[in-house]
Amino acid sequence: MAEQKKMVEAITSMDVDFAKWYTDVVRKADLADYSSVKGCTIIRPYGCAIWENIRDILDGMFKETGHENVMMPLLIPESLLQKEKDHVEGFAPEVAWVTQGGQEKLTERLCVRPTSEVLFCEHYSHIINSYRDLPMLYNQWCSVVRWEKTTRPFLRTTEFWWQEGHTMHETAEEAMAETEQMLNIYARMCEEYLAIPVLKGRKTEKEQFAGAQATYTIEAMMHDGKALQSGTSHYFGDGFARAFDITFQGQDNKPAYPHQTSWGMSTRIIGAIIMTHGDDNGLALPPAVAPIQVVIVPIAQHKEGVLDKAEELRKRLSAICRVKCDASDNSPGWKFAQYEMKGVPLRLEIGPKDIENNQCVLVRRDNREKTIVPLDQLEEKIPELLKAVHDGLYQRALENRENRTYTATSMEEMIQLANEKSGFIKAMWCGDLECEMKLKEQAGVTSRCMPFEQEHLSDVCVCCGKPAKSMVVWGKAY
Amino acid sequence: MAEQKKMVEAITSMDVDFAKWYTDVVRKADLADYSSVKGCTIIRPYGCAIWENIRDILDGMFKETGHENVMMPLLIPESLLQKEKDHVEGFAPEVAWVTQGGQEKLTERLCVRPTSEVLFCEHYSHIINSYRDLPMLYNQWCSVVRWEKTTRPFLRTTEFWWQEGHTMHETAEEAMAETEQMLNIYARMCEEYLAIPVLKGRKTEKEQFAGAQATYTIEAMMHDGKALQSGTSHYFGDGFARAFDITFQGQDNKPAYPHQTSWGMSTRIIGAIIMTHGDDNGLALPPAVAPIQVVIVPIAQHKEGVLDKAEELRKRLSAICRVKCDASDNSPGWKFAQYEMKGVPLRLEIGPKDIENNQCVLVRRDNREKTIVPLDQLEEKIPELLKAVHDGLYQRALENRENRTYTATSMEEMIQLANEKSGFIKAMWCGDLECEMKLKEQAGVTSRCMPFEQEHLSDVCVCCGKPAKSMVVWGKAY
Repeated sequence: MAEQKKMVEAITSMDVDFAKWYTDVVRKADLADYSSVKGCTIIRPYGCAIWENIRDILDGMFKETGHENVMMPLLIPESLLQKEKDHVEGFAPEVAWVTQGGQEKLTERLCVRPTSEVLFCEHYSHIINSYRDLPMLYNQWCSVVRWEKTTRPFLRTTEFWWQEGHTMHETAEEAMAETEQMLNIYARMCEEYLAIPVLKGRKTEKEQFAGAQATYTIEAMMHDGKALQSGTSHYFGDGFARAFDITFQGQDNKPAYPHQTSWGMSTRIIGAIIMTHGDDNGLALPPAVAPIQVVIVPIAQHKEGVLDKAEELRKRLSAICRVKCDASDNSPGWKFAQYEMKGVPLRLEIGPKDIENNQCVLVRRDNREKTIVPLDQLEEKIPELLKAVHDGLYQRALENRENRTYTATSMEEMIQLANEKSGFIKAMWCGDLECEMKLKEQAGVTSRCMPFEQEHLSDVCVCCGKPAKSMVVWGKAY
Repeated sequence: MAEQKKMVEAITSMDVDFAKWYTDVVRKADLADYSSVKGCTIIRPYGCAIWENIRDILDGMFKETGHENVMMPLLIPESLLQKEKDHVEGFAPEVAWVTQGGQEKLTERLCVRPTSEVLFCEHYSHIINSYRDLPMLYNQWCSVVRWEKTTRPFLRTTEFWWQEGHTMHETAEEAMAETEQMLNIYARMCEEYLAIPVLKGRKTEKEQFAGAQATYTIEAMMHDGKALQSGTSHYFGDGFARAFDITFQGQDNKPAYPHQTSWGMSTRIIGAIIMTHGDDNGLALPPAVAPIQVVIVPIAQHKEGVLDKAEELRKRLSAICRVKCDASDNSPGWKFAQYEMKGVPLRLEIGPKDIENNQCVLVRRDNREKTIVPLDQLEEKIPELLKAVHDGLYQRALENRENRTYTATSMEEMIQLANEKSGFIKAMWCGDLECEMKLKEQAGVTSRCMPFEQEHLSDVCVCCGKPAKSMVVWGKAY
């Protein structure tokens, strides 16, 4: 249809310019807008509704595993941030400083929180006394600010929204188990709800979170072959506990330091959804978080009975899914393009002929497959098709990742792959920072993670030829 | 019981020192804690769960009336804040200023939002074009910062959490109807969910929001007779629209300025809950927002079958209410005091004798009334009793308000009442700022509101004796 074509022409094709395609989708699907503060975006209602769906699912999983929400202050005194050496070194260069409050110049600068470890630790130092108080399983939903030089909606913004879990445990083992549990929750969120396959693994020391002893990550591959870190979980040991003098009386009556974790997933995951599933028609949303799961488009709506039937269906279907009926003046072609752009998983078309035959047409967003469905079977068919859309999106993303995952056993191969292909490159590594830096300089790739599922590709480091310690997945990242 | 007495002694009695009682309850019921940032508090899990319940109810009412959520930036450039004259005059003296971002000194200061009118207006100037885009019904859940000199948890804190609705309409009438609709939603929230009776009315010009043409308020009376402004709704006219050059093409094809509203309710409402319903045993929570609605206390839990039965009941009742079973080592007396302190609406006691008789004891938090209930009637009785607790709390609060509402027809009466009583004082007013100021200076009261339900108490102003324009409710406020 002409209108559809026109609308589609308004987005840059993915293959022509992926970055431009991304920005076009963000703007045209009404996900976000720029604000007048450099690097800060406005999350518009459609983007916000996706985030609320993600929040509700994650929050449910956090509460099921015994976590409680708290609300921590937005501002951190400079002296508090400085208490843990590695942490402040990691964050101080990129924070926003408040120096004036009301009419008074502050005697101590306050930073707008870039993350809240130190706030939690100070609070924990007041409320943890005995092993009976442990584990302390807290989470907070908030926004944080990191002064970024170059920004892109959802992927890297000066302010972003996230949740941050901060927990304290009696033993190191329990804290490590928590770190693993939360990484698994993030992986489930991605795979079972967002249809995004992820690699689970550990970050190299260089890529570790500031102050952490170990950082675990889930890495997703975007449609263009680049990696996106989609959630992280950190084991801190007792470093912060020592710095903040958090002790508890152990079961043996002796004082001890608790062991700590933190973990987070942010609005960046919306960027992952866009770049994993989107296509030249726009966004494609995983049904679990789509603000509209089914859009009803009446055909020949001026004809008697069509709008009534469409509205009747909307009411009926609202019991089983998030449904919208678009009865506006726009043409069906315009509506088709509009809701494809917005990534609505299923389109339901109903016109006079369908009504006569007591049926409608359901069209999947992922592959445009049409199914004619008797109206009395909708309650059964819609959940089936939503599941099919989820599976279709997941499969396509998995195939993309498999097709774009390469293996390098020599530096020449690594450089060639990094230059000619875009994707994950598996290679063995000796564990030395020097080799990691060389790979970055010479091949332009960074270590994404050391996957938990290790493979033995060769005996030696791809860079130096010394004995290899682990297989690393390398790539270019957002 | 000894333990219970001891625990209760740990809170200051309301009648001895209401302010101290308040702080004791906040701390001992684990609602909030102080942070190391002056005037900023940490909302602890129990307080946070109350806020999440309030949020979910309000958010549902906002969505039912067609509002959508967005997420706006935390930071506002100084020049943007200055665009509307009255607004910046109201807020500039109490904002926190960011002057440094990362390593760079900013060329323009950014303020941490004290409220977001200007952010919404700037966004609206980009997205409103035609009357077809109106109304624009947006809301945001966030925290804001106002540099306060003296602070108290929930009531007045440098940072607080709230929602702010910001809407744009085609006509003034529609915007005014929105202002009224939202005030009614706040009143419903207070009365139907929080069991807090409220007065609805309009603020005097002096008490109006910075930049608004009219401010509407719901005023609640706390147990000590002081007023708490519990929600406000503002009509802005087109002042901001003109300042931000927001225009739309009207149905007549001519450009026009839209009409604006904003409205908010904050974590301060938790302070209202504490001070309206609490007593010398601690908090008393309205069932609709209580994190735990029913606490099961096993009696003689070492006896065979007691804990199993208690746990069986917990599982069963979790289908109809938020229920917790406390099987800890603490004595029943300690538990009674603990959950009274935490304001849990219903306590369910079950011991060996009860099990034998297939019954349990239900105790209401509001009046301690005990009911023996056959176990097979719990699904029916618990909702009934939760409703009874709500009604009991509401009635007590309403009686308190009625008992503490006075009428003054002369300045002498006004001063005497203000000195000797604590409560609302109704009096006629000529409408002049001068009289309003005199009442503040001489009687120490401020105008709370001009209630929508006006009464004719006399023909003349209580202060100057000139013809009266309206009845005002005066009082001392938090």
